[in-house]
Amino acid sequence: MTDIIMVGCNGRMGQMISGLVKEDADCRIVAGIDIVDNRDNGYPVFTDIDACDVKADVIIDFSSANGFEKRMDYAARTQTPIVQCSTGMSEEQLSYLRQTGEKVAVLKSANMSLGINLLMKLLKEAAQKLCEEGFDVEIVEQHHNKKLDAPSGTALALADSVNEAMDNRFEYVYDRSQVRKQRDKKELGISAVRGGTIVGDHEVIFAGTDEVITFKHTAYSRAVFAKGSIAAAKFLKGKAAGMYDMADVLL
Amino acid sequence: MTDIIMVGCNGRMGQMISGLVKEDADCRIVAGIDIVDNRDNGYPVFTDIDACDVKADVIIDFSSANGFEKRMDYAARTQTPIVQCSTGMSEEQLSYLRQTGEKVAVLKSANMSLGINLLMKLLKEAAQKLCEEGFDVEIVEQHHNKKLDAPSGTALALADSVNEAMDNRFEYVYDRSQVRKQRDKKELGISAVRGGTIVGDHEVIFAGTDEVITFKHTAYSRAVFAKGSIAAAKFLKGKAAGMYDMADVLL
Amino acid sequence: MTDIIMVGCNGRMGQMISGLVKEDADCRIVAGIDIVDNRDNGYPVFTDIDACDVKADVIIDFSSANGFEKRMDYAARTQTPIVQCSTGMSEEQLSYLRQTGEKVAVLKSANMSLGINLLMKLLKEAAQKLCEEGFDVEIVEQHHNKKLDAPSGTALALADSVNEAMDNRFEYVYDRSQVRKQRDKKELGISAVRGGTIVGDHEVIFAGTDEVITFKHTAYSRAVFAKGSIAAAKFLKGKAAGMYDMADVLL
Amino acid sequence: MTDIIMVGCNGRMGQMISGLVKEDADCRIVAGIDIVDNRDNGYPVFTDIDACDVKADVIIDFSSANGFEKRMDYAARTQTPIVQCSTGMSEEQLSYLRQTGEKVAVLKSANMSLGINLLMKLLKEAAQKLCEEGFDVEIVEQHHNKKLDAPSGTALALADSVNEAMDNRFEYVYDRSQVRKQRDKKELGISAVRGGTIVGDHEVIFAGTDEVITFKHTAYSRAVFAKGSIAAAKFLKGKAAGMYDMADVLL
Repeated sequence: MTDIIMVGCNGRMGQMISGLVKEDADCRIVAGIDIVDNRDNGYPVFTDIDACDVKADVIIDFSSANGFEKRMDYAARTQTPIVQCSTGMSEEQLSYLRQTGEKVAVLKSANMSLGINLLMKLLKEAAQKLCEEGFDVEIVEQHHNKKLDAPSGTALALADSVNEAMDNRFEYVYDRSQVRKQRDKKELGISAVRGGTIVGDHEVIFAGTDEVITFKHTAYSRAVFAKGSIAAAKFLKGKAAGMYDMADVLL
Repeated sequence: MTDIIMVGCNGRMGQMISGLVKEDADCRIVAGIDIVDNRDNGYPVFTDIDACDVKADVIIDFSSANGFEKRMDYAARTQTPIVQCSTGMSEEQLSYLRQTGEKVAVLKSANMSLGINLLMKLLKEAAQKLCEEGFDVEIVEQHHNKKLDAPSGTALALADSVNEAMDNRFEYVYDRSQVRKQRDKKELGISAVRGGTIVGDHEVIFAGTDEVITFKHTAYSRAVFAKGSIAAAKFLKGKAAGMYDMADVLL
Repeated sequence: MTDIIMVGCNGRMGQMISGLVKEDADCRIVAGIDIVDNRDNGYPVFTDIDACDVKADVIIDFSSANGFEKRMDYAARTQTPIVQCSTGMSEEQLSYLRQTGEKVAVLKSANMSLGINLLMKLLKEAAQKLCEEGFDVEIVEQHHNKKLDAPSGTALALADSVNEAMDNRFEYVYDRSQVRKQRDKKELGISAVRGGTIVGDHEVIFAGTDEVITFKHTAYSRAVFAKGSIAAAKFLKGKAAGMYDMADVLL
Repeated sequence: MTDIIMVGCNGRMGQMISGLVKEDADCRIVAGIDIVDNRDNGYPVFTDIDACDVKADVIIDFSSANGFEKRMDYAARTQTPIVQCSTGMSEEQLSYLRQTGEKVAVLKSANMSLGINLLMKLLKEAAQKLCEEGFDVEIVEQHHNKKLDAPSGTALALADSVNEAMDNRFEYVYDRSQVRKQRDKKELGISAVRGGTIVGDHEVIFAGTDEVITFKHTAYSRAVFAKGSIAAAKFLKGKAAGMYDMADVLL
């Protein structure tokens, strides 16, 4: 049994995780943290994490960058491993994250879905074989029309997986309309499609001579990120201080 | 029976068309024009079109922009309708093309495949229904790594089909990596993937609320352009002076 | 303003429609009908449709086949047009549906999404052009692993669209593993993929010589069916007695 | 430099391989074997393999099952490793193949493309992670309308890769139209689409809760199989007696 403290328990992702945990015999939420305490979750909710006196095996943090340092301090002080899913962190906060990782187990990934993280792992192997054979790599991602950034952090993380496997030989290209020339071998094109309510599609294309191999991930709802964070929480229970990511969960 | 004069008969497309016409009971090539006369095609080949004294129902021109005007003049003078598939024409040459269209039937399209031209037709209808319902339109095209231009002329023609159907309300967007903002309703994103030997993939995506409709065309070889030009030739036989395109062939 | 009576208002689809209607300035639910009356919907709920004395412009019926005849009788007696989305009807019930259509406006479709219904319309035109040119038609549908029937009713409706446009020349083929022979020109293959929680993917493939055109529809949630039924309700308001389907809504 | 004897040198695949080898500085064809000797290939052609007195590093056999045993004997007698790409072999012939493998290096694969063989390798790893997480696996393959067998040997080989990685827990299902029931967890559905001139598309779908991962391979021409056989030939040069397949080439 994994006992979880859910930070951001009354937000959209927190509620989704609460729902999934209820149907999971191997874990339970023992306390929630949220600035609002407006519903009966079946577990105690604290509006200030420092007031939380419930002991747990792991923290899942799906709230905002605000107050992030305080939550990391709590994890370190109580020696509770933390799955950190908050987004929009500054460089300073990411540095703070790594420092906390020296004191307690910290898990952070660009994308919490198991599928995407498995893909990142397989892509490294695919790139090593296929790029050597002259295949070109391109990425197309699709997201809803409200998304602010392009390309997505996940698309960049997928590109980084390929690039790291190939000694960082690639340059990312986001626009080909301004030049009239053949594709250079060191290009890795990343295209961002925006429209409707698309939750998140990522396609990594290896194009060779008369042969194309495509790895595609489609998310149908944000529940995939909730599921991934629960799997990460179970994994992180009892782990020693250090930085972890979803690839470790998959090993 | 449609009698054809094949301009560029010894080039790659000319040879492909010659091969397909041989297996077609409804048409035949009665003369070829090419600067090189290096093989036995089973029909007379003239290195100068003005020396060609063979009467035909239609000309298919799959050569280069060089000498283009001379071929158009020949079509006008002999009153032979012409399917013009040469690429890389200047604005002046396109204007010359239209002037010739006042004297003889001239057919010109951004893409000679029947599939793409049918798609352009259906897209207009789809756009009128779906854009009214708030769907966003995006286009992704994929071509080989030797292609110089991006996006492809065909992708632009597909976008124009949608745009014309919607009173030209759209602005084409080729890069979203330089700004951090939500997609504007008047955007129509066009992405260009380049890799390997991909002959030509075009995908038009209509993304709405929880629903996506995709129209996709895949070319497996350049034979589709050869087939389209033969269909165009049969169609153009006996037509009055004027400008035609592949959409007319489909009507 | 379109006033709606929602039959099955406390079911999954009824609640989804209630939510969408609240954000729609052009329509409202004036009464609900359900065997359970267990929540505050902001409109009166009747457990027996015959007790409903609220006047409306149209009925949306998203409940079960049970008690179907009683609801149809209510529509006829009160002269309220009805959008009938209940599934699992017997042949007798479908016949009863058509009889009711002689007295009041009745709308019924295999699939309530606008996208699928637009596709059915475009497919007819595509088939007429492409099948004449020798293209083969195949359909692949994907649904979640709980679905009982295969292929889906929507896949069959898409196939019927193609078949009707081509004078019913096709025979549907569901399995090719039992014979060792070439595809016959009159075959139309329909494949059913089942897995995970896939909401509903339908792909209609036109495969020709070196060229493939694909029409694909992806549903990300059942909200698309809710949206479609609301559009149908607005359309059906004030219509004369008769049978209608979603294709009429799109005209 | 790898010296190759090309069996079936005047057939379609033999000619394609001859063309590719000409542009490859690391190998050359030193002799051809074919029942017809009707063209100048730039290397000696023998109509009877036993008459071939040219020494080579490896044999590529892309001919038919007829006379297969004689070619295997030649490989064993002359101690020349053999890449065996002939199709349509009987069980007896496959047994003969394995016996020859005790005397000389023999390489045989269901599909000679590098892409498909890499996919088979990655699928094993993907299956181990994803099936444990409850993902369902399904395969859809697409081929031209002249293909006799369905599903393709490659689709079955892909399914076998997944099945072997999961202790053969799956039963392959080719048709779901005859029963009305939910998908069983031990099913692995394989669908075969047939149409036009599609060279060969294979899609392996892992469908989980709100998340789908797809691995897709598209062949644009049979050149991919020619390329693969050349890579296999280079690999097999100098190898000890034994059975090999394309997965070994990729290691």
